[in-house]
Amino acid sequence: CNSCSLAQEQIMGKKIVIALGGNALQGDDKLPTSKDQLDTVLKTAKEIIALIKADNEVVISHGNGPQVGRIVLASEFSASVTPVIPFPESVAMSQGYIGYHLQQALRKELKAAGINKEVITVITQVLVDEDDPAFQNPTKPIGPFYTEMEANILKKDRGFAMKEDAGRGYRRVVASPRPMDIIEKKTIISLLRSDVLTIAAGGGGIPVVLDKSGDLRGIPAVIDKDFASEKLAELINADILMILTVVDHAYINYRKANQKALGRITVKELKGYMEEGQFASGSMLPKIQAAIEFTEKKRGRISIITSLSGAVEAMHGTRGTIIVNE
Amino acid sequence: CNSCSLAQEQIMGKKIVIALGGNALQGDDKLPTSKDQLDTVLKTAKEIIALIKADNEVVISHGNGPQVGRIVLASEFSASVTPVIPFPESVAMSQGYIGYHLQQALRKELKAAGINKEVITVITQVLVDEDDPAFQNPTKPIGPFYTEMEANILKKDRGFAMKEDAGRGYRRVVASPRPMDIIEKKTIISLLRSDVLTIAAGGGGIPVVLDKSGDLRGIPAVIDKDFASEKLAELINADILMILTVVDHAYINYRKANQKALGRITVKELKGYMEEGQFASGSMLPKIQAAIEFTEKKRGRISIITSLSGAVEAMHGTRGTIIVNE
Repeated sequence: CNSCSLAQEQIMGKKIVIALGGNALQGDDKLPTSKDQLDTVLKTAKEIIALIKADNEVVISHGNGPQVGRIVLASEFSASVTPVIPFPESVAMSQGYIGYHLQQALRKELKAAGINKEVITVITQVLVDEDDPAFQNPTKPIGPFYTEMEANILKKDRGFAMKEDAGRGYRRVVASPRPMDIIEKKTIISLLRSDVLTIAAGGGGIPVVLDKSGDLRGIPAVIDKDFASEKLAELINADILMILTVVDHAYINYRKANQKALGRITVKELKGYMEEGQFASGSMLPKIQAAIEFTEKKRGRISIITSLSGAVEAMHGTRGTIIVNE
Repeated sequence: CNSCSLAQEQIMGKKIVIALGGNALQGDDKLPTSKDQLDTVLKTAKEIIALIKADNEVVISHGNGPQVGRIVLASEFSASVTPVIPFPESVAMSQGYIGYHLQQALRKELKAAGINKEVITVITQVLVDEDDPAFQNPTKPIGPFYTEMEANILKKDRGFAMKEDAGRGYRRVVASPRPMDIIEKKTIISLLRSDVLTIAAGGGGIPVVLDKSGDLRGIPAVIDKDFASEKLAELINADILMILTVVDHAYINYRKANQKALGRITVKELKGYMEEGQFASGSMLPKIQAAIEFTEKKRGRISIITSLSGAVEAMHGTRGTIIVNE
């Protein structure tokens, strides 16, 4: 076991951002319901509370890919009976939805652990740059599939960028710009100081840009939740960025005969694998990039990539890819 | 002008809960879009910021009737393509949606006023009692209209209570229990103390009950936002409960030849009118009840009922029904 060298005591008394994967949060069902998600969140809450019991300060962020996808799907599907909700507003809705589940589940597990602490979801806007090159080349598909004819109508009538998606039809694509700042950061930091368990920057945050007068305006874009979580970790000056997803480790030679799980690894080694193209873009790659970005900035920082059920084992050094700066 | 006796200086340095009407927030359009709502919220923000400039401490709550109605409508309408979102989760979504608009608009007006203050939406659970008699007689219609046949299927398959609605078809009805407690109250109070402009208890809050083990569970119910705002005002020990809706005043003999706007009025007088049946249930009545409940508990307390655009004039005593305890 090459990850065992990360002993338990290293993950005590630390400041941790835990980034929960949106896919992982839904549960395993093919067409997961709200109840499936709440059940999964309840299991995840146990892992998070174990980290809090070990005297760590925790801030939670989460993805929203499938959840916001379904909010957009429902809104577009019912466009004939009720006005369509724009994308930034849909992200805000997904923050409320997932945040509520996390609040309820974490409260239950905090109570079970005898810890008196409130859990708060902060609706979070994340600033992106309208000149980010990502806006020239929207890549992130959102919402339902359309026929070519429907796609052309949406292009013309609503100005959507539409792309053919692997023979399955056309989908709307939006840009995936980098997060520049978290608008509600001061309050998130002050909630952390007040010992409130805070859920923030859900779904990568509601994407906003600054207009000429310095006011915010929502913009259709998907901010990668791993990058937003990295930004959050920077802003609160975290020691650890823990990315919980559907797999126990990052792998090299993924799904090949010589597949190998990565355990404890230095930023330098991991960069080498990344440059070899070992990690799938849109999936493991942004996690690796966020982990490297966070870890390499300061000696002693750690990033962890493991599954939703792996946080406690990662704390004991027996599961997960553990990226260190040394 | 019988309300002019409430001089401006009485509404300075006060602690105020401002309850914004969900209908009023949407704007005047028949089928209002997100943009209509954001435009209305921007106008409302100016009024709220004027109160803050006058050195008042403000916490904001809001209704969500039409907004959550449309979230439920879209979800039910698209049930064939994506699992239906339960009602408590839909309330959480509406809190994110409306909260985001308020955050963005209030930030803009704070900036314009040169005030450095963050704006935060707290996803809020509100406790109700499962033994509340309201659960025996669900009255609050939510979501779309159905035929009698569809209504019978929903009754059978999903256990919904369905009621015929004024000849327009069948609708699901849920209970409207009284709010008992606000789960996130400690943090709301601490945010207020930290000078953060906080939006809480949106849509009356996400309705939850305590199960036998003391854990929370979402329950389909509509908590009247006026009662939830009153509870919020109690919890933060507010001086003023300001209910902003679509009309400038509460009226007696409403829409009759002898209609009369109520200006400054004592709790005792107002109770008299209420007992006469002057106020429409589900509309002005809960506002009057919440205002009485809040005002009568403590000498010096004030409740104000006026329109979204009337807050500043109410502060100067030139608009609105102003309920006093003296």
